[in-house]
Amino acid sequence: MSTDSRQTSTGPRQMKLGAFLMATGHHVAAWRHPDVPANAGLDFKHYKHVAQVAEAAKFDTLFIADSVAAATGDAASRMARSDHFEPLTLVSALSAVTERIGLIVTATTSYNEPFHIARKFASLDHLSGGRAGWNLVTSDAAAEALNFGRDEHIDHAERYRRAREFHQVVTGLWDSWDDDAFVRDKASGAYYRPDGLHVLDHQGEHFKVKGPLNVARSPQGQPVVVQAGSSEAGRTLAAQTAEVVFTAQPSLAAAQAFYQDLKSRAVGFGRDPESLKIMPGMFVVVGDSEAQARDKFEAFQALVEPRVGVALLGRMLGNFDLSGYPLDEPLPALPLTQSGQQSRQALLSQLAQDENLTLAQLGRKIAGGRGHFSVVGTASQIADHWQAWFEQGAADGFNVLVPHLPGGLEDVAHKVIPELQRRGLFRRDYTGSTLREHLGLQRPANRFSAQREHRVTHTDEEGLKV
Amino acid sequence: MSTDSRQTSTGPRQMKLGAFLMATGHHVAAWRHPDVPANAGLDFKHYKHVAQVAEAAKFDTLFIADSVAAATGDAASRMARSDHFEPLTLVSALSAVTERIGLIVTATTSYNEPFHIARKFASLDHLSGGRAGWNLVTSDAAAEALNFGRDEHIDHAERYRRAREFHQVVTGLWDSWDDDAFVRDKASGAYYRPDGLHVLDHQGEHFKVKGPLNVARSPQGQPVVVQAGSSEAGRTLAAQTAEVVFTAQPSLAAAQAFYQDLKSRAVGFGRDPESLKIMPGMFVVVGDSEAQARDKFEAFQALVEPRVGVALLGRMLGNFDLSGYPLDEPLPALPLTQSGQQSRQALLSQLAQDENLTLAQLGRKIAGGRGHFSVVGTASQIADHWQAWFEQGAADGFNVLVPHLPGGLEDVAHKVIPELQRRGLFRRDYTGSTLREHLGLQRPANRFSAQREHRVTHTDEEGLKV
Repeated sequence: MSTDSRQTSTGPRQMKLGAFLMATGHHVAAWRHPDVPANAGLDFKHYKHVAQVAEAAKFDTLFIADSVAAATGDAASRMARSDHFEPLTLVSALSAVTERIGLIVTATTSYNEPFHIARKFASLDHLSGGRAGWNLVTSDAAAEALNFGRDEHIDHAERYRRAREFHQVVTGLWDSWDDDAFVRDKASGAYYRPDGLHVLDHQGEHFKVKGPLNVARSPQGQPVVVQAGSSEAGRTLAAQTAEVVFTAQPSLAAAQAFYQDLKSRAVGFGRDPESLKIMPGMFVVVGDSEAQARDKFEAFQALVEPRVGVALLGRMLGNFDLSGYPLDEPLPALPLTQSGQQSRQALLSQLAQDENLTLAQLGRKIAGGRGHFSVVGTASQIADHWQAWFEQGAADGFNVLVPHLPGGLEDVAHKVIPELQRRGLFRRDYTGSTLREHLGLQRPANRFSAQREHRVTHTDEEGLKV
Repeated sequence: MSTDSRQTSTGPRQMKLGAFLMATGHHVAAWRHPDVPANAGLDFKHYKHVAQVAEAAKFDTLFIADSVAAATGDAASRMARSDHFEPLTLVSALSAVTERIGLIVTATTSYNEPFHIARKFASLDHLSGGRAGWNLVTSDAAAEALNFGRDEHIDHAERYRRAREFHQVVTGLWDSWDDDAFVRDKASGAYYRPDGLHVLDHQGEHFKVKGPLNVARSPQGQPVVVQAGSSEAGRTLAAQTAEVVFTAQPSLAAAQAFYQDLKSRAVGFGRDPESLKIMPGMFVVVGDSEAQARDKFEAFQALVEPRVGVALLGRMLGNFDLSGYPLDEPLPALPLTQSGQQSRQALLSQLAQDENLTLAQLGRKIAGGRGHFSVVGTASQIADHWQAWFEQGAADGFNVLVPHLPGGLEDVAHKVIPELQRRGLFRRDYTGSTLREHLGLQRPANRFSAQREHRVTHTDEEGLKV
């Protein structure tokens, strides 16, 4: 198991794995479980341990979600949701206690300024030696809007136009400097080459940003851009701009269709399909036997209060307050959401109908996987599913969701990962040092340097020496 | 020297010390010096070393300045100014490799959202176990405005009104939760006490922010609030809201007047003068003899190009472009700046007049200390000055500015600090674990919890049991 079979970039295709970290785990009742530190959300030692477990298992990356509002109300007071580290500060600290693993962090385009986001992620990329990734999201919750001077969240179409422009500004700022602009020549006194500086001077519908960024171009050239939108607008934006897509898919067939659709769209935008990695979420509960895995899962399920499960369901459906509806009746008909959860809403409504579930039953059903494909079983059973998805055109890898932390991730690290390694489906060691290298993503050329080279070439063709 | 004479909170008054960190040091030509790593601004190992040197010397805090714009232009291309870590990400990483030292970071109120700032500093306070400080500034440079959708920086009065309200919102959000709101009771399923939650619901001239914050109240209750404004509006704001003031004072007499003025103003606002610590900057070059210190200093001075010194001068005077003025003529008459540098402008104009300096000479003169009081000499001579200021009503402590890093700080740590300790003027070890404890600042009560207790008391007086 410890023999070194280093993968090179020309070796067989292997899956990419992200460790999706919610403080106490992905199961809504995880915090109540005796094995789980209930205060994990604000315990740096906990996160340090979890990050080091993931790194020892050679995960490509950590993945940390975010919201810019606390959850309040009766059900929220019974969930571990309102007392977490802000993720950029958290992963900056984690960068100092890890060496190789990627650090993907969520930051919203709806209530931020592109200069700050460009700068913080470039800084994180420098701090970590090239391990930063930005999960670009839009904000769909009224509670978030209310913290930033608005009465309502921004409507779907507008939010995506803003996100598209936000991405243009951020990536433009990341190219403010040539990779070799900072010469720092002590003898001559030249600190940077003036012709290595590029002023963005962006003026658009939502933003006016001059630049340049006050951070040198970062080790990865640009931090990796990640997205998770599955709506029409979300897919279009991802196909244009994302390098990694995180998605919730209920079945192999649905995942195959999504994979095919997104890769085709990317090609339609002139992109190499390999430049976009699709990583569906996979919720897993690992046991030494299937029965043991089921018992583990049931121990979490037994801790779900109906009102908490239903509150989580309301959020999954698009920030609906379902607290007024009877628990033992079917899911009521709901208006099509204006939020970012349209695809999740369709998926869950279908599930409720197919299995004839009451509201409480549906809430309990999604308490662990939250709409992601779930496998409760042995390492071998889990690897079978992942292998099928990976080899049958449904995924380039997975975001791994575990019911509880750190135990659930330790189970994956110590049982599932070795099984994948035996099958040749996952690396035994890192071969690169940056997140891009782990994921097999090219380091982007600087758009301005490329232009300059292009201009020079063009001039050369006219027979001039420049 | 290593005998333990632990200071208790009831021991003799001792000075507070901050290590003011610019990447390569405070001297504008430091990066050209052979002892200095020219790429320090983006070298985490460098900052880690510097932070650990300061912590081993028992400094109260690190102090990191900021600007939200790159410096561009001919002179800027010859200064180490445009390629630094973003400071909040930097100190978050430093929090993971230090244990006791405070972490004061600058963040502007002019181009940020209070929710983000409240959240990030609360998060840093949790990450670091209570060591966070926020240096609240306003932004006076047009280059910064241009990165945030504006053509001009916000005018002085407006900027301070905004800063005042920004402070109200941030500190209000820091009190979103009672210290004991998160009960996390696994048996009952109660994660937080609903009556421990306080919704700010702020609506003001500049901001509308509902809250609550999605971070529990932090170890210090509130991160320490630091300011550096010396204008009339700056002093008023500091007297109302600051817990630490960083200031540039040219002489003992001026520092005494400033100290007296600010403490009186604080008392005028109903505050205990001890709740506001005044820490002037002290630029020091340490030698084993005075002659050696002078030689050291001259080695830096010799590396200053006239155009670079004059560019720095322009910035000190309030973002003036002086590149068109003759180098060998006196400082031209300049319009009173609208920026935050009025007091610095008056100070430097006076200096130029008193010493009859040309523009180039004045630029060179401020290349190290940048208007701060400077001592070039032995540890004993430096300690004499600090002791005089400390004992004669000019300072509660100092922000220490060194020409170069890490060498300049190592000199202070290994030579000046032991001298201060011998004189009983500085701690030999930390006695507390939070920045507030180091500085002798009270942990603030939660305004809402206090109200609630007040209400209960009031009701009791009416003979009711609640």
